[in-house]
Amino acid sequence: MDRLWTNARLATMAGDGLGIVEDGVVACRDGRIAYAGARAERPADAAEIVDCAGRWITPGLIDCHTHLIHAGDRAGEWAMRLEGASYEEIARAGGGILSTMRATRAASEAELVETALFRLDALLAEGVTTIEVKSGYGLTVEDELKMLRAARGLGETRAVRVSPTLLGAHALPPEYAGRADDYVDLVCDAMIPAAGNLADAVDAFCEGIGFSPAQIDRVLAAAKATGMPVKLHAEQLSALGGASLAAGHGALSADHLEYAGEADVRAMSAAGTVAVLLPGAFYFMRETKLPPVELLRAHHVPIAIATDCNPGTSPTTSLLLMLNMAATLFRLTVSEALRGVTVNAARALGLADEIGTLEPGKACDLALWDIGDPAELVYRIGFNPLHMRVKDGRCC
Amino acid sequence: MDRLWTNARLATMAGDGLGIVEDGVVACRDGRIAYAGARAERPADAAEIVDCAGRWITPGLIDCHTHLIHAGDRAGEWAMRLEGASYEEIARAGGGILSTMRATRAASEAELVETALFRLDALLAEGVTTIEVKSGYGLTVEDELKMLRAARGLGETRAVRVSPTLLGAHALPPEYAGRADDYVDLVCDAMIPAAGNLADAVDAFCEGIGFSPAQIDRVLAAAKATGMPVKLHAEQLSALGGASLAAGHGALSADHLEYAGEADVRAMSAAGTVAVLLPGAFYFMRETKLPPVELLRAHHVPIAIATDCNPGTSPTTSLLLMLNMAATLFRLTVSEALRGVTVNAARALGLADEIGTLEPGKACDLALWDIGDPAELVYRIGFNPLHMRVKDGRCC
Ligand SMILES: [Zn+2]
Ligand SMILES: [Zn+2]
Repeated sequence: MDRLWTNARLATMAGDGLGIVEDGVVACRDGRIAYAGARAERPADAAEIVDCAGRWITPGLIDCHTHLIHAGDRAGEWAMRLEGASYEEIARAGGGILSTMRATRAASEAELVETALFRLDALLAEGVTTIEVKSGYGLTVEDELKMLRAARGLGETRAVRVSPTLLGAHALPPEYAGRADDYVDLVCDAMIPAAGNLADAVDAFCEGIGFSPAQIDRVLAAAKATGMPVKLHAEQLSALGGASLAAGHGALSADHLEYAGEADVRAMSAAGTVAVLLPGAFYFMRETKLPPVELLRAHHVPIAIATDCNPGTSPTTSLLLMLNMAATLFRLTVSEALRGVTVNAARALGLADEIGTLEPGKACDLALWDIGDPAELVYRIGFNPLHMRVKDGRCC
Repeated sequence: MDRLWTNARLATMAGDGLGIVEDGVVACRDGRIAYAGARAERPADAAEIVDCAGRWITPGLIDCHTHLIHAGDRAGEWAMRLEGASYEEIARAGGGILSTMRATRAASEAELVETALFRLDALLAEGVTTIEVKSGYGLTVEDELKMLRAARGLGETRAVRVSPTLLGAHALPPEYAGRADDYVDLVCDAMIPAAGNLADAVDAFCEGIGFSPAQIDRVLAAAKATGMPVKLHAEQLSALGGASLAAGHGALSADHLEYAGEADVRAMSAAGTVAVLLPGAFYFMRETKLPPVELLRAHHVPIAIATDCNPGTSPTTSLLLMLNMAATLFRLTVSEALRGVTVNAARALGLADEIGTLEPGKACDLALWDIGDPAELVYRIGFNPLHMRVKDGRCC
């Protein structure tokens, strides 16, 4: 063994619930977990032994839905909104998603990496070891690829696994005003084929203010034709059947879901599609329609939790706070919330064999916590008890 | 001058609004602000000059309502609640405020200091330089004084100004069950006289589950008879006229206020009583009744914002997050939110002459921020851009 973490309490997330091992050991060899379980059966020795002094170890956290890469911020626009400005006034003042698009188009790949690092570092400081990062503010082939390369660049700059997602169908760029179908052609015929080596999946925004189910259907079909997994922003502001549509394409996840109904949930259950809930956006937008948590439970749909980190509707960089919001606002249990940023988030990224639990063969991505009970990770609001982060077996 | 901070942008909080000085300087002599304003009129020289590289400086933040000192936590109780346990089941399992009382009574003064430090350090890491700390979990003369001494102890352990408040009338201890008036006698006749040298003010909890207006009236009168300023937990869960009652006693502040009406607000305005809003408790308890922000504005009642840091209804240690919640949930503007944790929070503590703005003569308590605009302090959710904290002119 390269390294043993001993005298720890484990929340392995294996099986159902938290998978607790009270007097536990994790062993690492070649960056992979070689053993995670009771002290009695621990491997005999290792090059280095870390005494955890009774601390808790969870899998490294996974943020499975972010728009972490973007230029500019929208603080000024939000300040205007608090002063009573209308959306029209904000648009006239140069605000809204197109302001982020303009800033992102104007930025170089290196600038996109550089300006995202403070957000990434905030997540890593909370024990995050894997993040998904979407494109979607470039909205040209070139600028979308630039965003995907910047996402990859984050993973080369910090000790974190990055899973980039092509979100070409995020918003209609102004040069395509009135020609949404032509823009969808561009996404299907040019962006998706070009993104094959840069993106792990294809996403889209199914909404009245985004793209219609018929357009989304074309995007997801084009992605599948190239062999890329799909996911979808669905049922955030209205019920368009996007979650069912995504499930019909075997989507890894359908995300937001406030307006999803029983048919959507049944379709997701049948397809094994993960429900990614985004309480930060719900909170910041002061939504009142809750996602159908009881239905998701009844139909055994795995639930994941993510930050949705983005400048317009969820300017948060705290996945721990999202645990609290998922419990406080959506009434997820402690176990559901913690599984939502570990095992189920891994599944939402198609990485269930690689990360998300403390089990032999998976990447040795760990978070060590100064807590007395895993419930504290969900209970506290705006507090970070991380003691140490481990990526591929290395403390960092 | 002992020290000059140059090349800074200042949000002085002097006058109305943020009091912005774009190319600003702060000068310190003997721990006090000697100058804060435009570079052109800056003092000639100083022993040490700190180049702020264009960063923003605000007054050190003030958390004017906390229950920071307490033993134990209530994470397990909350986990039960999320699983569907009733209040009765939780009480039977030993939960609720009395569990905090039992743990606090069992703890020594040193233990109370020691177990509060992680909460205090989290606040200091966000630029907080003054905190109010209430007693209220001891509920005997001896245990309440122990809590007040522990609060003072925090100020001796860290570079922070602590303003302790006696909150003997927080809850009815079980040994007084059915004899609330006798307990109020104890508060008035024993606790308040004994707390004179240890507490800066007297607080109480006016609520159906706390103490009645008639009982509160006795507590506040007893405090005033000893010359101590008063404040009150009022109108959190129901409209009992507590805010008016507090104003009638010339209270420094009335806190929570969700159910306050126009008569309360008028009385507060006439008395100069600050409205302390506590969005963390509103959020965590999933309240829906909003505090009367429009009325407070119309009657020119100063608004402060605080964490209410406590284990039962607001387990938060992030005052920055409270800024966002005050704006997102209560629709305070950026300026109102930031004044709420500086100038108006100082006023709520009776310390308006000492702290809360960048003005000559006040303590040189500063927060330096890595931000492009003060709005970012309110806009971001769960992010801490503090660059440096200065207490009494010293970096710490
Ligand atoms: Zn999103
Ligand atoms: Zn309180």
